[in-house]
Formats: sequence, structure tokens, C-alpha cells
Amino acid sequence: MRVLAIDPGYGRCGVAVVEKIDGKEKLIYSDCIETSADSDFPERLARVARECGELLTKHGAQSVALEKLYMTKNQKTAMRVAEVRGALINVAATLGVPVFEYTPGEVKSAAAGWGAADKEQVARMLHALMKIEKKIKYDDEYDAIAIGVTHLARNGR
Amino acid sequence: MRVLAIDPGYGRCGVAVVEKIDGKEKLIYSDCIETSADSDFPERLARVARECGELLTKHGAQSVALEKLYMTKNQKTAMRVAEVRGALINVAATLGVPVFEYTPGEVKSAAAGWGAADKEQVARMLHALMKIEKKIKYDDEYDAIAIGVTHLARNGR
Repeated sequence: MRVLAIDPGYGRCGVAVVEKIDGKEKLIYSDCIETSADSDFPERLARVARECGELLTKHGAQSVALEKLYMTKNQKTAMRVAEVRGALINVAATLGVPVFEYTPGEVKSAAAGWGAADKEQVARMLHALMKIEKKIKYDDEYDAIAIGVTHLARNGR
Repeated sequence: MRVLAIDPGYGRCGVAVVEKIDGKEKLIYSDCIETSADSDFPERLARVARECGELLTKHGAQSVALEKLYMTKNQKTAMRVAEVRGALINVAATLGVPVFEYTPGEVKSAAAGWGAADKEQVARMLHALMKIEKKIKYDDEYDAIAIGVTHLARNGR
């Protein structure tokens, strides 16, 4: 079971391909897609959607897992992130790949053991759980890996 | 100048192609895309996005105009509508067509003369402005026409 997990964003979008092999979580690929603030929003959204579509095809993921929007005080940003999510849902649905959504609390519970874990605790637990050889610069990438681990924990065999 | 105007939604999505010819607004096409509540959300969103993409290509619209999300009390619905918008923005951006966004107040001002106009007043003004031969069943379709008229008023020659 291989999943493309995405922490949706238009400035930075974390992506991870994770798989359970012989009962063990394995990180196949992860990255943080970054777009320039000089580009307009439709261009940034389209770039994120295109790259995620390419990853989905390239890695042959059977599911897409997304973090459900967390309503913040900044409604405008929340709306823009929801728009990115929608573009990603469409990319997956068009390729016939089912989409699963998890709240930040669900992700933290699954990846670190409790829903109020901070980012550092989540990162530490992920390193304990699987081999992460790459140096990870941004939290968005860890978030994507955690979303993937959550999906495996909930659907895995 | 021809625009594809969309009142985004996943249950009902109003669409209209309008154009200014010799200084006069003309309705080329309008419809209300309906999806079944029996389908899951990604399927409904993908259907709306696919049909809008087909309309865009078929009618050779040079712009896409969308209603900006109106934050309602129902956050969940607002989020889902934002997701539909995102899928539509991606469809337009992928085809290289610029996207324009208007608030409901801007649409009512442009289409009916004031921002607090009700739906009936907007519909009446649209009928006065242009030939609408088709019987229109849902407000979503009038809304799409009004969004198109707004775009022409703001960008028209």
C-alpha cells in the first residue's frame, strides 16, 4: 500500500510517498514544493497541482492523503489553502485515485501518540519510526510524512 | 471579449458564457451543472471541473470570472466551495486563461446597480440588459450570468 501524502499550501507544499512493507513504514520520497511570491496565485496553485499529479503517476500511489484544513484566524489564507486542496482533490479524482483527509489532531495522534504534540516531537517520532536519510529543511515536509504515516496506521495491513 | 463566468458549487454550479459585441452584452450560453448527492465529494468536484474545462475550450473564452467565496456561518460548506473554486482556478491556469474574482457585493452592484440587491432584482436587471431566451430554473445560473456581466463592465471596451 503506497500513499502520496500532501500538506497542502501554495507557498510551501510538503509531499511524501510512504509505504508499508512487511509491516514496516518506509519513506519512498519526500520534498517541499516551493513557489515564488512573485507569481500570481493561480500560477502557484497550478504548479503545486501539476507537480503533485506527476508524483502520483511517477510513484504509482494508490491513495492520496491530505491534511484537512485547520481554520485559522487568517480566513483569507485558509481559503487559499482550501483552494489548493480542491485542485489536488481534482487531480487525484481525475486519475481515479481515492482521497483521504485527516485533521491535524488525527495526524499528531497517529504520528506522535497524542493530538497536542508539537512539531519537534512529531519529527522525532518519525525519525524513530522510519529511516529518513535526507536532511529536511521545512516542517511542511515532516507534516506530509506524518500525514502518510497516519494514513498507513488507519488503513494499513 | 468573451468570458466564462462561474458561480462555484458542488451540488449546483452556475455557468455562463457572455460577450460584449458592439458595446452590447450578449449571452452565448448558460446552464446549471448539477451533481448527485449520492456521489462522493471528489467525484462531484471532478465533474464540475471537467465540465467547466470543456466549456472553456468549446466557447474559446479569454477569461474566467468567479465569485469570491462569501464566508457563511457554515464553515464546512464554505470550505468545500473554496475547494471547487481551487479546482476551477487550476483548470483555467492550466489552459493559460486568466482568472478574475468578484465578491457578491461587486456582482450585485455591477448587475443591478447596488450591492444589496436581492436575487429577483438581479434577475430582472439581467433580462433588461440582454436577451435571455432560455427558461432559467435556478438562481445559480442567474448568478453566473451576473458574474459575467460584472466582468464585462469592469474590463469591457
